[in-house]
Amino acid sequence: MRFCSACAAPVEMRIPEGDHRERHVCTACGTIHYTNPRIVAGCLVVHDDRILLCRRDIEPRRGYWTFPAGYLESGETIAQGAVRETWEEATARVVLDDLYTMFNLPYISQVYVFYRARLVDGAFAPGIESQDVQLFTRDEIPWNELAFPVVRSTLEHYFADLESGHFPVRVEDLMFSTLRPPLAR
Amino acid sequence: MRFCSACAAPVEMRIPEGDHRERHVCTACGTIHYTNPRIVAGCLVVHDDRILLCRRDIEPRRGYWTFPAGYLESGETIAQGAVRETWEEATARVVLDDLYTMFNLPYISQVYVFYRARLVDGAFAPGIESQDVQLFTRDEIPWNELAFPVVRSTLEHYFADLESGHFPVRVEDLMFSTLRPPLAR
Repeated sequence: MRFCSACAAPVEMRIPEGDHRERHVCTACGTIHYTNPRIVAGCLVVHDDRILLCRRDIEPRRGYWTFPAGYLESGETIAQGAVRETWEEATARVVLDDLYTMFNLPYISQVYVFYRARLVDGAFAPGIESQDVQLFTRDEIPWNELAFPVVRSTLEHYFADLESGHFPVRVEDLMFSTLRPPLAR
Repeated sequence: MRFCSACAAPVEMRIPEGDHRERHVCTACGTIHYTNPRIVAGCLVVHDDRILLCRRDIEPRRGYWTFPAGYLESGETIAQGAVRETWEEATARVVLDDLYTMFNLPYISQVYVFYRARLVDGAFAPGIESQDVQLFTRDEIPWNELAFPVVRSTLEHYFADLESGHFPVRVEDLMFSTLRPPLAR
């Protein structure tokens, strides 16, 4: 952000009066431009004993497998966003079960939220951001080609919970990127 | 939003190629400016058999009682935001228990998330956005002077769950504002 979206004057980084953090503040009209974390909503879709995964056709992690998920839109509930993204990325209609996993990724200011869901009619096909969509049994899942740690963690919780039949909400924090090299030790 | 924050040229509302919704798009550099729902993080703070509430000193609902809560900041986890807001609004240090309630408010593009929490040392005092902070037993709670439906709903769940000793995560949608007059009937 370089310019004020209200008046087009340059913005500067400073701490507004009564605040405690630097913000983008307009040098002319004084408007404070806040930035906040974004929510990514998606579905762990189950059909019989198989899990639906999408092979990404966009960066980051193009070619790797993930759940259908994407940024929550203004005016949506998280459940609505999860259903919409599943339609857009996997052309799949789903019925939602309960909220399942939530991941804080503060290093990129994102919160991932996944619902458990079931296919309505067994149909699916790649959407515009997917190279492929497939159903996988536990043994077939491409564990070494998963796009993100949130996908792996959700799958691991799911298969563990499947044995008890209880699927409590799981909240986890990922405190640094696992896509970048680790910090020097 | 009237001007592009990247180049200061005017923006227009249109549907970008491959998208399905109107966005603010720069007429000069083409940057697409997305807006997304914001997360409000807060705490249901319990001390002995009493609940901590803050009397708001800011609009909306100035003078009404609420939980300490506020917008999640970039770089925070929801838990961190809940703890920070409790310090800022109630000068109270807390230990978090589990995630408890989550409310989608799509008509204002907000998601509220409350953790259950306990006071560390029993100390609290009004922060800059609060007129007053008090502990209330169930019978003392100012039920008719609560600021928001999300506060009432969380309190009702809490006292119901207290009898079983189980506090499952609750997800609710509030599909229109209860602060505005209802639609004509």
